[in-house]
Amino acid sequence: MSALSESPVVIDQVTVPRSLCYDRSLDTVWIINQTQLPYALEQVPLKSLEDCCHAIRSMQVRGAPLIGVTAAYGVYLALREDCCALEAAINELSKTRPTAVNLSWALQRCRNELSTVITEERAEQALALAQRLEAEDIAVCAGIGDQGLRLLEGLWQSRAESQERLNILTHCNAGALAAVDWGTALAVVYKAAAAELPVHVWVDETRPRNQGAALTCWELAQRKIPHTLIVDNVGGHLMQRGQVDVCLVGSDRTTRRGDVCNKIGTYLKALAAHDNDIPFYVALPVSSIDFACMDAHNDIPIEERSGSEVLTATGRNAAGELQQISLAPEATPASNYGFDITPARLVTGLITEKGVVSATESGIASLID
Amino acid sequence: MSALSESPVVIDQVTVPRSLCYDRSLDTVWIINQTQLPYALEQVPLKSLEDCCHAIRSMQVRGAPLIGVTAAYGVYLALREDCCALEAAINELSKTRPTAVNLSWALQRCRNELSTVITEERAEQALALAQRLEAEDIAVCAGIGDQGLRLLEGLWQSRAESQERLNILTHCNAGALAAVDWGTALAVVYKAAAAELPVHVWVDETRPRNQGAALTCWELAQRKIPHTLIVDNVGGHLMQRGQVDVCLVGSDRTTRRGDVCNKIGTYLKALAAHDNDIPFYVALPVSSIDFACMDAHNDIPIEERSGSEVLTATGRNAAGELQQISLAPEATPASNYGFDITPARLVTGLITEKGVVSATESGIASLID
Repeated sequence: MSALSESPVVIDQVTVPRSLCYDRSLDTVWIINQTQLPYALEQVPLKSLEDCCHAIRSMQVRGAPLIGVTAAYGVYLALREDCCALEAAINELSKTRPTAVNLSWALQRCRNELSTVITEERAEQALALAQRLEAEDIAVCAGIGDQGLRLLEGLWQSRAESQERLNILTHCNAGALAAVDWGTALAVVYKAAAAELPVHVWVDETRPRNQGAALTCWELAQRKIPHTLIVDNVGGHLMQRGQVDVCLVGSDRTTRRGDVCNKIGTYLKALAAHDNDIPFYVALPVSSIDFACMDAHNDIPIEERSGSEVLTATGRNAAGELQQISLAPEATPASNYGFDITPARLVTGLITEKGVVSATESGIASLID
Repeated sequence: MSALSESPVVIDQVTVPRSLCYDRSLDTVWIINQTQLPYALEQVPLKSLEDCCHAIRSMQVRGAPLIGVTAAYGVYLALREDCCALEAAINELSKTRPTAVNLSWALQRCRNELSTVITEERAEQALALAQRLEAEDIAVCAGIGDQGLRLLEGLWQSRAESQERLNILTHCNAGALAAVDWGTALAVVYKAAAAELPVHVWVDETRPRNQGAALTCWELAQRKIPHTLIVDNVGGHLMQRGQVDVCLVGSDRTTRRGDVCNKIGTYLKALAAHDNDIPFYVALPVSSIDFACMDAHNDIPIEERSGSEVLTATGRNAAGELQQISLAPEATPASNYGFDITPARLVTGLITEKGVVSATESGIASLID
């Protein structure tokens, strides 16, 4: 049985499986193992809480929205095994990765909605909730795309006479692979392409894990969106030369004041955009806003990963096998911060499913119903 | 016969061959093949003009000062073969790489000093000139180190009460390997370490060719200078957290107005330094200043290299062999600019062998005798 036949998404005649889908007949959650992309499109089943924790920790799934939905399925799988395991499961899952707020947001929703349900019904309700979060995520990301599309249409109208294409720079992967479908920053790109704007994406490779080179390029190629891969050093130079019309990135956590925590290196691109009067937009679901967080630098835990990711690169060798190579002298000390903070003053606006708002306390407050 | 026994440089009991040395007994120029570092310390002989052109073009030698000296030896090797080949040799060498001004500076010196010499004596004079440029480069770089040391001493005096070490961020390799010896930015570090300042260097890996990871880490380890490798995305985050006291970089060409052309990505670090009130110094010989150049963006040719460097990484595999791996989907378009321009307004000062001056037209004019 091919897992790839489950829940296919058809985009411009290209069939791409979703990053996560639930198979009713097998009562199993399938994910794309993103550590194997772009070399192999491998789906793996998540059958237990441990499988979910491993998938998040090892970055088989990554991206703030997708981590949240995966965690909700993790709660279901834990309760299927032991209907009294709600708090233990939430506790385990909450420790898998520190920075993206969608993880604790999703787990809090599980706690709120399940703790009052009688234990015998919790597993069933947890599954229903996970499926609801999954469906919500797709709708929310599509909504982000629609909101951003209007921005790009305005930008394109101001450029169309002098340019052949609308140049968008993005960092890391804020695409369909970072969510259940559509993505955040790339949802805007996909909606724009569907609306026949002549988009072209500059893709930052995003060392050390190369999510741009490995994931964003793969996604964009699947969907036939014109794009060019660049190293993380290049974006500023392109902006100085007028080759970037807009920056679009995602966020793992944004404070109530509009400071944006996102993949390491985002801050450098925001500085360059500001220096060159280029709009810098952050596309994110409202669930990525941490309304309790005032002080990004003190309150957001910045994940520090192993220095080995810096000392090495992983890719395909001539034989087509995935291989790791060493880039520096042995025993070189290395430091590996996963995220940085882009101050609100550098952010032109936040593109959410509820509208585009300024990266300010009042702008963000306007998103609350 | 081991080439490694030629002209060793002893630094703190560590013997390191120079990036380039001339062997009188064999009438041969030896270079370290920098494309093999840090995995093998391989010296190769340059025996002809073609060898020199190849060494520069293939980046066996790189770094603005070293390219200049190598080119002067190339003129000698051409004249040794054919004493009438002066202009042809200059012409060939000038086409090897476009951005570093030291290449045309060295070739102009060859033209000035050799064109009036009778042809029979040109080869001999060319050798003497190349040896003079080599010796000058060493003295100039040591002078840059001495000038920069005073700056770091001042910085350290202002920090010593609250900090255990002086944190320097550097980009690419502006070290002994980029010159004949000492280097430019790293000359300052070496002089500071010799003066017992507790320096620690954050080394940008500097994709796509990883000169930071491969060359700067190797140099610093050889000389036992504490350092930590980071990916190019991290510097801004470190600056926001107060973990960088000063940025020190080199330059391939600086305009008479103080705009600095250097390895791609330098501009992004300068923006971050400016945003965090961290001094950003450029260390360079006066020969890297293009006094004829007013407009960096229009007048400096920015080298565009093959996209394959972006699509791949090269390093050592588990068997210890140098190997290239592919990082992105096949057929991904990639763009590869080698340098960018840091505007003078972001540069705290220029550290030259003749003193530290502001990155302004008047500051730079004061360097001319």
